[in-house]
Amino acid sequence: MRDVRIKKYFKKLPYTYAFGFHPTIELIRTKPTKVVKVLFKNEANRFKETEQIRHLCRQKRIKVEFNNKLVDKIAHKSNTYAVGIFQKYEDQPDPTRNHIVLVNPSDFGNLGTIIRSMVAFNFFDLILIKPAADIFNPMVISTTTGALFKIRFKHYNNFVQYVDEYEYHKKFLFRLDGESKLRKTKFKTPYSLVFGHETKGLPNILNQYGEKIVIDHSKHIDSLNIAMSASIAMYEADNKTEKILREKK
Amino acid sequence: MRDVRIKKYFKKLPYTYAFGFHPTIELIRTKPTKVVKVLFKNEANRFKETEQIRHLCRQKRIKVEFNNKLVDKIAHKSNTYAVGIFQKYEDQPDPTRNHIVLVNPSDFGNLGTIIRSMVAFNFFDLILIKPAADIFNPMVISTTTGALFKIRFKHYNNFVQYVDEYEYHKKFLFRLDGESKLRKTKFKTPYSLVFGHETKGLPNILNQYGEKIVIDHSKHIDSLNIAMSASIAMYEADNKTEKILREKK
Repeated sequence: MRDVRIKKYFKKLPYTYAFGFHPTIELIRTKPTKVVKVLFKNEANRFKETEQIRHLCRQKRIKVEFNNKLVDKIAHKSNTYAVGIFQKYEDQPDPTRNHIVLVNPSDFGNLGTIIRSMVAFNFFDLILIKPAADIFNPMVISTTTGALFKIRFKHYNNFVQYVDEYEYHKKFLFRLDGESKLRKTKFKTPYSLVFGHETKGLPNILNQYGEKIVIDHSKHIDSLNIAMSASIAMYEADNKTEKILREKK
Repeated sequence: MRDVRIKKYFKKLPYTYAFGFHPTIELIRTKPTKVVKVLFKNEANRFKETEQIRHLCRQKRIKVEFNNKLVDKIAHKSNTYAVGIFQKYEDQPDPTRNHIVLVNPSDFGNLGTIIRSMVAFNFFDLILIKPAADIFNPMVISTTTGALFKIRFKHYNNFVQYVDEYEYHKKFLFRLDGESKLRKTKFKTPYSLVFGHETKGLPNILNQYGEKIVIDHSKHIDSLNIAMSASIAMYEADNKTEKILREKK
């Protein structure tokens, strides 16, 4: 793959960075054709993971470079010893699997945490409705601890465009004014769990596309953090989904 | 209450700050005797919440001051218009209620998010085993969106000291090597849900004090984020706890 000029990350760059040994290993294992190069600091040689990564790079014919100055230029932390540089990509969501749909997520941390929980609860397809926080921001990638490379994700300009493409997925819209409670809801594959913006929630205009559902919680608080809501919903839905699909991926 | 010299927050200050209208209102409502003063920026007069806060302050005989320079000195965001200044405090956990115990939590965001979820799922007693992230850091208080003022919390130097004081609480230790699964666990009041450090988990030496339990998740990921684990556990445990205690608080 062609070499790139390495710059501090910004949204319009066509490539991005996975910082740290573990995310870099996951990246090479799952998306080898997207990897441009692996950068190390000289200190990386003290860690056994470095030999493992170099071995993988030889197998996959990926370039390796030791360059302290470059790593320090792009990494946020001085104890980042390995960086996987890779081209941005998208994948088509699997029409037979259950989806997570985030409408206008705005927070890097929440987005990363939700992706980590997705993999934990057997969801491998993420739809982002624009505008959305940049999934390729290295902060998001770090928060997922490698889980980003285990899922498929795709951006849509609006919710209707997604509905048109996946009309057979039953859409569960998580809202504070939801009519049915999560605990009592039945989940039949294929379905989509849909979550809104951190403070604004889901627009009312989407109500026509699915069933409004609420996570049963006390009256002592207005709402749950979006990453908590999504994780709880996935935990509950996963448990109620037919187990036959489980081992597909 | 005596006036204080207002400085940018640091851990050893005997007082701290709730930033924003909603947390300030919660603070005055629930902890009026701890409030030293409420600070406003002049622009606060454009918002209806300011009149509500001033009314509460008159009722509770709390000082109010308009001072743009002071607010900008201590707030992180320029759109902070109200600051509740209050003395740090601790409360004795209720021996009849279920507890959340965090052993060496190190992340401000996770701590705040867990407190927000506690209130959502009817947990009002938090135990922090030192060393622990500073619960009074204004970043934690902001993340709880006012929930901090609805719970009791207390620090202990070590887990054994807590166990000695609350010996009748059954301790559920959340560990990746847990023997029983959350989904199958029965919860009988009073009990404690115990969570470890973000990366190190719970020390093995604590195993003798309780039952090891794990949140059922896929093999595709090493672990869940601690705030996710705690929220899911509270959601599940709350649902299985006898409802009679629910309305006590």
